[in-house]
Amino acid sequence: LAISEPQRETATIACAQLAPVFGDVGRNRALAAGAIESAARSGADVVVLPELCTTGYAFMDRSQASELGESAEGPTLAGWRALAVEHQVVIVGGFCELDHERRPRNSAAVVDPRGVQCVYRKTHLWDREQLIFVAGSEPPPVVQTTVCKLGLAICYDAFFPEVMRELALAEAEVIAVPMNSPVVDPPTSPLAMEVVLALAAAHANSVFVAQADRAGTESGIEWAQASAICDPRGHLLAGPVLGEELLQASCDLGAARDKSLGLRNDIFADRRPELYANSRRRSTSKETVT
Amino acid sequence: LAISEPQRETATIACAQLAPVFGDVGRNRALAAGAIESAARSGADVVVLPELCTTGYAFMDRSQASELGESAEGPTLAGWRALAVEHQVVIVGGFCELDHERRPRNSAAVVDPRGVQCVYRKTHLWDREQLIFVAGSEPPPVVQTTVCKLGLAICYDAFFPEVMRELALAEAEVIAVPMNSPVVDPPTSPLAMEVVLALAAAHANSVFVAQADRAGTESGIEWAQASAICDPRGHLLAGPVLGEELLQASCDLGAARDKSLGLRNDIFADRRPELYANSRRRSTSKETVT
Repeated sequence: LAISEPQRETATIACAQLAPVFGDVGRNRALAAGAIESAARSGADVVVLPELCTTGYAFMDRSQASELGESAEGPTLAGWRALAVEHQVVIVGGFCELDHERRPRNSAAVVDPRGVQCVYRKTHLWDREQLIFVAGSEPPPVVQTTVCKLGLAICYDAFFPEVMRELALAEAEVIAVPMNSPVVDPPTSPLAMEVVLALAAAHANSVFVAQADRAGTESGIEWAQASAICDPRGHLLAGPVLGEELLQASCDLGAARDKSLGLRNDIFADRRPELYANSRRRSTSKETVT
Repeated sequence: LAISEPQRETATIACAQLAPVFGDVGRNRALAAGAIESAARSGADVVVLPELCTTGYAFMDRSQASELGESAEGPTLAGWRALAVEHQVVIVGGFCELDHERRPRNSAAVVDPRGVQCVYRKTHLWDREQLIFVAGSEPPPVVQTTVCKLGLAICYDAFFPEVMRELALAEAEVIAVPMNSPVVDPPTSPLAMEVVLALAAAHANSVFVAQADRAGTESGIEWAQASAICDPRGHLLAGPVLGEELLQASCDLGAARDKSLGLRNDIFADRRPELYANSRRRSTSKETVT
């Protein structure tokens, strides 16, 4: 499909909550491929995989990430390219990328039947990721895929309301969020915080949010298992679930292009950026922002 | 208390979910006063009242709002000043303000024992409010009260992640949200959207959010009854409840001054404003933002 093809009205989105085994890249690639095939067989047009889904998460240090990582021309993205063609799906998934200087990046790729459309390097690094990865310098992207305009954020990126707003303003219809979210606090009743944030971002931006989190445990890390598909009204279409599961939902993409709310409001037109001056500045909680 | 008093470490916040009767301003003032007194007796330091709590919400037109409204020097704020002194509390509540040109504003006041600290005029008007009120031109404020640094947003204002971020960056410890939120969609299971947005804003900004919504019905309008007190981790401390109720919670204000998350992150320092360029611009959903 060319970019000039007419807009699709609906798309079936799948999120694969997976439990890869740390360091067993061959097994994990097969696990991801199985999830993609299984989602495609049940009619998915877009499959979202977790963050770092081929290596696992808990690298000891940067050199271990360098050993297990691979370039964007490596076998993981080659495999996703082949699967995207074979099943005519869009694949979004996280992998440990080695950049041209072989520095590890916490990256995610958007692959469609035309090939790799985008490799994004996580810009907001969580906890020990700061010791392992070099942060990206390009903002979370919106990619015109064969199915939809797809925004991309990786896990902690999505905790920043600015990130989700930017993606929606750049016309994302679906924001895919590959995720590996460790349980920090006791889970929030009745919904995990990661799901609350996804629902709020979906509603505040009138956009679909499709996040694929981890199942299982890894080096003592418990995962929030916060996979979810949220519609532009902030309703849960699928998830959360426990264990390895495939979430799937049919999404009316037109609903994400419509920013109206009620009879007289439009969540984009109603913004008043001239009143939002502080947030343009970099700040730390130590500084006084006046 | 002078502004130079030492910071308080805890404060008891109350939110009054009330059912005023449209147009019966005398009765509604007494209802609000009763809620303030009752909250103060149970130890509240700050009492948040709903939006437009002395007039009710469903004005037919601007001239009806002009008839029922009053200036910031009128009896409603005079009453709150007296109650703030008598009970040594901070009062935050919505009222229909007539400005110096007698144009109606959907305003909220922050009143503490020193007097009226701030009158804010709602900047994001919902639905028919656009036909009734003149929108404010000053941003939602942060006020140093005798108890805490208090941010203020009125109902639909709080649907904009930018508003909550601005208030937190300006060092609000507690964001008070007087609210009259009509049910638009069927309520979201398991939490009303207004509560999801409050929890997300509290977590994303590490701040307390105290919103006071309406109970009852008015001119066929059903209210979301989404009163809630959320802590800086995005946990519900109180609410939501059905009917006329007083929510109350003891709040560790230091938790709202601490923007750290986990061992190595800080939600303010981790922001990357250089990557958030689109949202600085005014846009409508009709425009292409590139």
